[in-house]
Amino acid sequence: MSAVTLCECFARDGLQHEPAQLPVATKRALIERFAAIGFQRVEATSYANPKTIPQFADASELLQQLQRRPGVYYKATCANQRAIERALSDAQAGWGANELSLLVSATESHTQKNLRASRAEQWQRIEQMVQAAGHGFRLVGTVSMAFGCPFEGAVDPRIVIEDVTRFAQLGVTHVALGDTIGTATPDHVQHVCTELIRSLPEITLITHFHDTRGTALVNCVAAYQAGVRYFDCAFGGVGGHPVKITYGEGHTGNVATEDLVNLFESMGIDTGIDLDGLIDTLHACEQALGRTLDGRVGRSGLSPLLFNQPRN
Amino acid sequence: MSAVTLCECFARDGLQHEPAQLPVATKRALIERFAAIGFQRVEATSYANPKTIPQFADASELLQQLQRRPGVYYKATCANQRAIERALSDAQAGWGANELSLLVSATESHTQKNLRASRAEQWQRIEQMVQAAGHGFRLVGTVSMAFGCPFEGAVDPRIVIEDVTRFAQLGVTHVALGDTIGTATPDHVQHVCTELIRSLPEITLITHFHDTRGTALVNCVAAYQAGVRYFDCAFGGVGGHPVKITYGEGHTGNVATEDLVNLFESMGIDTGIDLDGLIDTLHACEQALGRTLDGRVGRSGLSPLLFNQPRN
Repeated sequence: MSAVTLCECFARDGLQHEPAQLPVATKRALIERFAAIGFQRVEATSYANPKTIPQFADASELLQQLQRRPGVYYKATCANQRAIERALSDAQAGWGANELSLLVSATESHTQKNLRASRAEQWQRIEQMVQAAGHGFRLVGTVSMAFGCPFEGAVDPRIVIEDVTRFAQLGVTHVALGDTIGTATPDHVQHVCTELIRSLPEITLITHFHDTRGTALVNCVAAYQAGVRYFDCAFGGVGGHPVKITYGEGHTGNVATEDLVNLFESMGIDTGIDLDGLIDTLHACEQALGRTLDGRVGRSGLSPLLFNQPRN
Repeated sequence: MSAVTLCECFARDGLQHEPAQLPVATKRALIERFAAIGFQRVEATSYANPKTIPQFADASELLQQLQRRPGVYYKATCANQRAIERALSDAQAGWGANELSLLVSATESHTQKNLRASRAEQWQRIEQMVQAAGHGFRLVGTVSMAFGCPFEGAVDPRIVIEDVTRFAQLGVTHVALGDTIGTATPDHVQHVCTELIRSLPEITLITHFHDTRGTALVNCVAAYQAGVRYFDCAFGGVGGHPVKITYGEGHTGNVATEDLVNLFESMGIDTGIDLDGLIDTLHACEQALGRTLDGRVGRSGLSPLLFNQPRN
């Protein structure tokens, strides 16, 4: 058992805004590699509408071909009822994802723009989706804009706590907080996570930090200090947010997997990830996208201190 | 009075390894701009041997032309006795730096490779340099490799504490700890800084974090939490280390000023830096070097939350 559980998001959140459309075989090889080097959770694909996001038109084909490792969760994101139906159909055919994620947003304005619904409507949909999904999947609720919204600015932590509570009441066991635009600060993160872990101990809290303003690692450490043990990340820091065009921002992306693994391992926090395979896997991701990615450790290498002192 | 005092290192640590040789007028304009937007400390130049580091052959010329702001410290680095003599000569001529920095390294191997001396020899030189400098300058001792060495790996915190103590005994009032190769972790930083602030309250502790592995911001926050209030940084994350060729590493650099200011201000920590001038100044640095620099906030902008909620 590792001390923290990382979810590799390259194949979904990472690819969602990439101009390159990767062949199914490439996606499959990468996802199998992520699991092989120790990821217990891998974001594999999305049951998005192929007309809206063609990148994931291959969702079922990919899942059908994917070799699974026992104990690993392969996540598919589900934006609506139709997505749940596709997930159920794949599961019945014997090749489904074993983890589905459901999205709400902490602010009205962002819910309207991103999901074309009010928060109340979106919560109704979520209830229907949870009901339809049944008991065959691990469900992950995601609260986006949990630490700030491009339209409304600061987000009241009470809304976030309310949303996580609501997921818990629906029987969802895992909830991710998304710092979608990179405005979270470590003190804010520590406050919200401490409060959630105290009031909802039955929930496994996950953080999903974007590195829009370079703050992803500092927020991961703050979340860890508050007791969070599940973290989302993506090789090379790829990834962003579907409606980025509305934000007027030039850059976003997930916390870079290789930087997070390097930091946690340097702190003596066992990630369960094979360090020898980490950089090779980053290079495979870079090769797939045809460019050098944006993390620091890819350029500088893992800390030399990881290799000449006792490991925890 | 701001809550923290940042030192802008672009013009020295930043430029030291840049292939571009900036004209004196460009350096001067940038340094004056740094002071104008609120930096209380600016690393202006180095009295390095012009044959070794031609980038700073213009040290005296630059200092002579520089318009000063009252209360601002303009630092020049001094590698040896000859550098101190030049600093004294410029001071006598009326245009000297008012802050000089003196360098030791926490490990024998790095001292040998970087300074061509044993630690004992280097400390003898430092004593002579402090004596020669007299009382006309604020002196900043710098301990490089304070959190790890590429040749010796982990560095015993007791060595660092010993070095800072030694600077204090020589009457040096400010001491910077350099994470020269980006191997510091927040717990390590917090331990060393807490211990130093406890045992040497007369010393103003400064941290100088490199972002080699993406950890600079998390280490700044850890240092702040331990009580450090002086931080070195450089626009665009430029900068590195003189003997980088021996490290086999592809990338290093200071914590990016714009990212640090954004984070501290977002945490309600007043940096004293004019936010309106911050990004323009970054662009001036980019223009001087003829390329886009490496920080995150330069691409994404300051956090929108800084502008729609009460500022501390």
